[in-house]
Amino acid sequence: MPSKFDPPSGTRDFLAADVARREHAFAVIKSVFASYGFEPLQTPAFERLDVLLGKYGDEGDKLIFKILRRGEHEASGEADLALRYDMTVPLARVAAAYGSQLPTPYKRYALGPVWRADRPGRDRYREFVQCDLDTLGSPSLVADAETVAAQHDALAALGLTDFTIELNSRRVLAGLLDAFSIPAEVGPGVLISLDKLDKLAPAAVVQELVNERSLAAGQASELVTTLTAADAADRLRVALSSTDEGTAGLDDVDTLLSLLSGQAPDGRISFTPRMVRGLSYYTGPIWEVVAEGVTGSLGSGGRYDHLIEQLGGPDLPGTGASIGVERILTLMPGADAAPSARLDVAVTMLAPDLAARSFGFAAAGRSAGLRSSVYLGSSGKLRTQLKWANDSGARWCVIYGEQEQQAGVATVRDMRTGEQAKVPVADLAGYLAATARADG
Amino acid sequence: MPSKFDPPSGTRDFLAADVARREHAFAVIKSVFASYGFEPLQTPAFERLDVLLGKYGDEGDKLIFKILRRGEHEASGEADLALRYDMTVPLARVAAAYGSQLPTPYKRYALGPVWRADRPGRDRYREFVQCDLDTLGSPSLVADAETVAAQHDALAALGLTDFTIELNSRRVLAGLLDAFSIPAEVGPGVLISLDKLDKLAPAAVVQELVNERSLAAGQASELVTTLTAADAADRLRVALSSTDEGTAGLDDVDTLLSLLSGQAPDGRISFTPRMVRGLSYYTGPIWEVVAEGVTGSLGSGGRYDHLIEQLGGPDLPGTGASIGVERILTLMPGADAAPSARLDVAVTMLAPDLAARSFGFAAAGRSAGLRSSVYLGSSGKLRTQLKWANDSGARWCVIYGEQEQQAGVATVRDMRTGEQAKVPVADLAGYLAATARADG
Repeated sequence: MPSKFDPPSGTRDFLAADVARREHAFAVIKSVFASYGFEPLQTPAFERLDVLLGKYGDEGDKLIFKILRRGEHEASGEADLALRYDMTVPLARVAAAYGSQLPTPYKRYALGPVWRADRPGRDRYREFVQCDLDTLGSPSLVADAETVAAQHDALAALGLTDFTIELNSRRVLAGLLDAFSIPAEVGPGVLISLDKLDKLAPAAVVQELVNERSLAAGQASELVTTLTAADAADRLRVALSSTDEGTAGLDDVDTLLSLLSGQAPDGRISFTPRMVRGLSYYTGPIWEVVAEGVTGSLGSGGRYDHLIEQLGGPDLPGTGASIGVERILTLMPGADAAPSARLDVAVTMLAPDLAARSFGFAAAGRSAGLRSSVYLGSSGKLRTQLKWANDSGARWCVIYGEQEQQAGVATVRDMRTGEQAKVPVADLAGYLAATARADG
Repeated sequence: MPSKFDPPSGTRDFLAADVARREHAFAVIKSVFASYGFEPLQTPAFERLDVLLGKYGDEGDKLIFKILRRGEHEASGEADLALRYDMTVPLARVAAAYGSQLPTPYKRYALGPVWRADRPGRDRYREFVQCDLDTLGSPSLVADAETVAAQHDALAALGLTDFTIELNSRRVLAGLLDAFSIPAEVGPGVLISLDKLDKLAPAAVVQELVNERSLAAGQASELVTTLTAADAADRLRVALSSTDEGTAGLDDVDTLLSLLSGQAPDGRISFTPRMVRGLSYYTGPIWEVVAEGVTGSLGSGGRYDHLIEQLGGPDLPGTGASIGVERILTLMPGADAAPSARLDVAVTMLAPDLAARSFGFAAAGRSAGLRSSVYLGSSGKLRTQLKWANDSGARWCVIYGEQEQQAGVATVRDMRTGEQAKVPVADLAGYLAATARADG
């Protein structure tokens, strides 16, 4: 039952173990992107409302979180700012704002939260992290290949193995519609139906093409066979060879596959002619990362040579990809591992007059590169403090009581074995460092 | 002149060099805090409006960015959510929500943006990063000492040297008011005046105490002398010894100074009786980090034993500190350093049939741990591509043309010296790795 202390609907609090796993994944992704020469960009959480409105369609506009004007204007009930809905519109704005200050081409990644007032549900949040990489200003297919490779490497670096990348081209799809003389007005609908070939039987898709897209039965059947028959690849090449767009699209796909050969295990990246990608702004290669047993994609991308201009930016060709970080976080190996320890070294605090020494021992632990802290509770009992050391996951407990004070030593207890060693006070940092090294 | 492509007023875009510097600083701070056993907490960017309203006073309420209700409720002009204004109210909510799931004491840090609809100005932003560390559930002064030490170490780890930490206690201040029989209703005003002793001459502060706080001239003069005379420390001890609160406060300060001795260079942390801290919720030790020539503080903190309950959380004692990250970023050594290189290895792309090989060379560079990318432009000229390699800051350029193809080698050009080496294609990754190692 939601309580008044829960975070707002569709958002989450991340406690230590969650933050650790998320930040690890983000660091891995950033590192892979940087290794390709992509550079980071961070834009504000909100943009002026007019920068966002009208960029995501009517449905998208409704999902934008709008921020009320402030001060005397608050009473108007009007909004003038809005939370970032994606990373692409801010990229278009930045490309317009900084122009020649940016490298050519501009290869950037952006990793951060975006906000959408969607109905919250399983794996659907109102605040979630989006992770994009884009190259603006290069018409070269090599830029597309680099984007696919970087996306692939990031997923592999996160420990994912059971994924494949489905590759296609908008030009292949345009050629296909052309080759089958499908009218422009029903083309998009036909593609949406064809995209269901990954879930529906060919006969069902033929049915849909006839019933919902008004195709003739023979035409629908031939179209589906071209994509699904045992010799589909050959049939498709023959069909596409009759159109310039189709031929060019196939060449693009072949070039991409050639560039990407050797970048990924055999079979992981393959030409998938039925794969459509919903968004209309793609103009060239498109791709989607899928995994067996996972609904939806783990990532996707494509070339969009007019989008940046449409979004209010300069007229630059672009290609980019997005990783579905939130979904991947649930698939990563070790996603359900136990939370890690908070401390390496726990130091007792057994009496007020021993406090300064104990405090210094924790500093000695830190100087040895170990997370170290003193006991902060109110009990003076060793037993209670050892329980705290254990609860905090500490590998060692430094015990310092009156006996130790008189002997000029600290007792270092191995919390796994219970073994204890008396260590001269001045040697503690060195002892802890050496013990930690020996511990691996 | 602001353009329509600028980020919203009071916010900033961070391009690569800025992101690198900021993320480096954030990583250093997090690492120091973690070394003390503080653990990370991330809460959503927005909270329910009622969680935030009334927690920051009337002025604060006006500065909260409010989010319009959505869908059919949008037309009402009402807000139901609001952007995070600080990290403390979300902490109180989390302490209430997760209770016993949190460690005792709960030592957490939070580093992330907060939003305030303040008038933008020099060093004053509407979106800025706040960096807090807090310990909830420990009444021990050792927790305060740990907080001061962690804050100190973070600043030192960022390379700051010219800062001092002014330490005081609310109980010392209460005792001082008591010892001078200053009525409760003028107490807060008197403290505000005394706090100006770091900027104004003693006589000017006496004047203000008389004119604005209605103190008798003799009383005002004696009060100021107690804080500023050559033997102020002794005078203060004598004055405070007449009150229980003052005596206890002095003991607290002495204990803290004793715990912190050896944690910082001599003289960096000192008892500063005139230092007041504006916020009324502090109940024990208070401190402020200041630097010569810098207006305002670099950080501050204190004990607040009732705040979490006042903010809607459980009744837990607390102590915490905040680092003024945005200000520190401008003071950090190397803050104006040139942007770093985008690439280590730049690979030419001289002809379409050489593309797959070149693409593979970039992968070889990455496998050697080097940021590597191919040329993505449209020129086939080596000269243009070498200029790109140079502009991207690459240390090496891998050149692969027809000659190289025939000889089965790649030419590796040292971009600093212009020296070139022919390397067998299969050896490239190893060669680059070895060269990079030799390069340091």
